[in-house]
Amino acid sequence: MSEFLSSRFSGLEEYTPGEQPQDKKYIKLNTNESPYSPSKKVIEAVNSEEVKDLRLYCDPDCKKLKTALAELYEVSTENVFLSNGSDDILNFAFMAYGDRGAAYADITYGFYSVFAELHGVESQIIPLNEDFTLNTDAFKGLNKLVVIANPNAPTGIAISLDTVEDIVKSNPESVVLIDEAYVDFGGESCYKLTEKYSNLLCVQTFSKSRSLAGGRLGFAIASKEIIADLEKIKYSTNPYNINRLTQAAGLATVKDNGYYLENCKRIIETREFTVAELEKLGFEILPSKANFIFAKSNKISGKELYESLKEKGVLIRHFEKPRIKDYNRITIGSREEMEIFLKTVKEILGETV
Amino acid sequence: MSEFLSSRFSGLEEYTPGEQPQDKKYIKLNTNESPYSPSKKVIEAVNSEEVKDLRLYCDPDCKKLKTALAELYEVSTENVFLSNGSDDILNFAFMAYGDRGAAYADITYGFYSVFAELHGVESQIIPLNEDFTLNTDAFKGLNKLVVIANPNAPTGIAISLDTVEDIVKSNPESVVLIDEAYVDFGGESCYKLTEKYSNLLCVQTFSKSRSLAGGRLGFAIASKEIIADLEKIKYSTNPYNINRLTQAAGLATVKDNGYYLENCKRIIETREFTVAELEKLGFEILPSKANFIFAKSNKISGKELYESLKEKGVLIRHFEKPRIKDYNRITIGSREEMEIFLKTVKEILGETV
Repeated sequence: MSEFLSSRFSGLEEYTPGEQPQDKKYIKLNTNESPYSPSKKVIEAVNSEEVKDLRLYCDPDCKKLKTALAELYEVSTENVFLSNGSDDILNFAFMAYGDRGAAYADITYGFYSVFAELHGVESQIIPLNEDFTLNTDAFKGLNKLVVIANPNAPTGIAISLDTVEDIVKSNPESVVLIDEAYVDFGGESCYKLTEKYSNLLCVQTFSKSRSLAGGRLGFAIASKEIIADLEKIKYSTNPYNINRLTQAAGLATVKDNGYYLENCKRIIETREFTVAELEKLGFEILPSKANFIFAKSNKISGKELYESLKEKGVLIRHFEKPRIKDYNRITIGSREEMEIFLKTVKEILGETV
Repeated sequence: MSEFLSSRFSGLEEYTPGEQPQDKKYIKLNTNESPYSPSKKVIEAVNSEEVKDLRLYCDPDCKKLKTALAELYEVSTENVFLSNGSDDILNFAFMAYGDRGAAYADITYGFYSVFAELHGVESQIIPLNEDFTLNTDAFKGLNKLVVIANPNAPTGIAISLDTVEDIVKSNPESVVLIDEAYVDFGGESCYKLTEKYSNLLCVQTFSKSRSLAGGRLGFAIASKEIIADLEKIKYSTNPYNINRLTQAAGLATVKDNGYYLENCKRIIETREFTVAELEKLGFEILPSKANFIFAKSNKISGKELYESLKEKGVLIRHFEKPRIKDYNRITIGSREEMEIFLKTVKEILGETV
C-alpha cells in the first residue's frame, strides 16, 4: 500500500478468488466452472477474421449481443445490461443503490461484503437459519439495497419465486438484487417479475451454465430505469469493457441455447448421482439447485477432506469460516470426474471400493 | 434514471465514445485505431484450444503476460499492473488518489472530468497555453493528483521527459499520472523514472500502437506500492476482468514487439507525409507526436469539413467545444487511406487534383 492511497481504502480486504495451483494437473471441482466446452458455434465465431479486427474498438453498446439476449428472454433491449462478468453489475449496484445501506446473508457470495466496504455502504448481515435456509422474513420491509444469491452460494439452497416476489414487494423504496449466477441448474429465475417491479434487478452470468467463465460476460434484466442507471455508470467508468471476442462468443452462445440447456440437464443428473453416492458414505448434503453441492462428512473434518483430496489431485473449495468449516463446496464436473472424486473420497475414508 | 440512484450520480454526464456509424463502410480516421492488424503470432495464439478453455476462469494475476511485459520493459513484475484498457487504471487512480483533488488541462482526454465527477474529486482545470502547449509550470507544487496525457489528446503535443520529472519532483505528496496512450509514435516514456519516484504512475495501452483496441488491455508501470494499491482495488471490484483470449493475444503481442515497432515507424512516416500535404492546402497543424493530428483549415470551418468528409465516406473527429471547434482530430491510417482522405479534402476545398 502506498502512502498516497485514500484512507477510505486502508482497511479494505479484497476478495480472494478460488485457488488455481499450477504445480500439477488437478481435477478442478473448486470454482464452479462447467465441465463442458463452449459450443462448436462459439469456436467458429471466434475466428481469425475476428482476431484481425481486434485493431478496431468493440461496440460499447454490444448491440448484436444485447438484441439476441433480449429476444431469448422476450424482453426489450432497454431491459438488458451487459457487463464484464456479473461482478461488474454487483459492484455498480453497491455504488449506485447503497446510500441507505445493504442487507445480505452471513453465508453467501463473499464479494458482497467487499463491495460494501469498497463503497462505504453500511451492511446489515442477516444470518441464515439453523438449517442454512435464508431467513426470508428478515429481508422484508428493509428499504435498503437487498442482495440475495438465488440459489445461494456456497449452500446451493434456492428460494421460490413467490418468496422473491414477497421480498421485492415489501421493499418498494429500494433495489432488490437477485444474483442468479446458478439459476440454470434447477432454480426459478425472477426475470419476468422485472416487468411488474421497477425495483427488481435480476443478475445472471455466462460463466457457469454457458461455459464462458474465462470470457467474462454477465448480464442484468431490470426496468429500463435501472438499466439506464447501470449504463450511466458503465459509460462513466469503462465503456468498452466487453471486448470484441467475448461479444462474438456471447452472441454464438445465445444462438446455440439448446446445447447449453442440454449441458445443464447433464449437470443436474450428475449432481443427483453424486449426492446419492455421498449420502451412502455418510455425508450430509444441503439440498442443492446449483452446479455444486455443499457437503459435510460424519467421519472427517472439512479441512482434512479438502487437504487429502488436494494431495490426491482433486481440488474442492473449503472455507475456514464459522458455521461452515465442517463443509466443503464441491463443483459438479463431468460424470467421469465425479466418479474419480467419489473413488478418491472412498480411499480417504478408508473404505474399499 | 431510476428513483433509486444515489443522488451523487444525478448530475453525472457519462463519457461519449467516438461515433461508430453502421450505415455504410467508412474510412475510419476518428478513433485513433491502428490501420494494421495484430501480428500473425496473435492470430495463432487465439486458437480453438484457447476458445475451448473459455469454460475455465482466466488467471486473475495474468502471470504470463505480466512476466513478459516486465521483461520487455526491464522492470520487476511487482512494478506492473494490467487492466481492462487503460481507462480502468485512470478510473482506479481517481478513486484511490483523488482525496485532495485532481489537476488536468482544459483540453485533454475527455474522460478525466467524468472520472472526477464520478468519484466526487474536485478538479483544478489548467488551461493550455495560447499555442495549445501544456502550461507545465502550473502543474508544479500542487500536491494533488496530477493527470497529464503525454502526448496530449486531441492536440498531439508532447512534453519532454525533463518536464515530466520536474512536475513529479515538485508534487512529492501526491501521485502524478502520465497517460502515455500515444507515446509510441514519437514521445518519450517516463516509465524508467518510476524507479526513482514512488509517486509516478505511468499508464500505457495496447489499443493504439499494439493494434488491440478491441481486445481491451492497458497497463501501468509504477512503484510496487502504487501497483499494490491498484491490485487491491482490482481485487475489490472485478479480479477476472482481463479475459482469457485477451491475455493470450497480449502475450503474443509482447513477444512480437518488433512487428509493432515497425508499424509505429510506418505510422510516423505517414503522419509526416499527411502533415506536409495538408500544409500545402493551407492547413495549420499542431506538432504531433501521436497517431493523429489536430488540424485547422484556413478555408473551411472544422464542423463543415467534418460533415463534408463524413458525407463522402471519411470519418474524422470533431469536438464542438470552445477553443478547438475550428480544428479536427484526424487519425493516421494507412498510406492508402490518407491518400483517399487528402483527395477528398481537396475535392471539398474545390481544388483540382
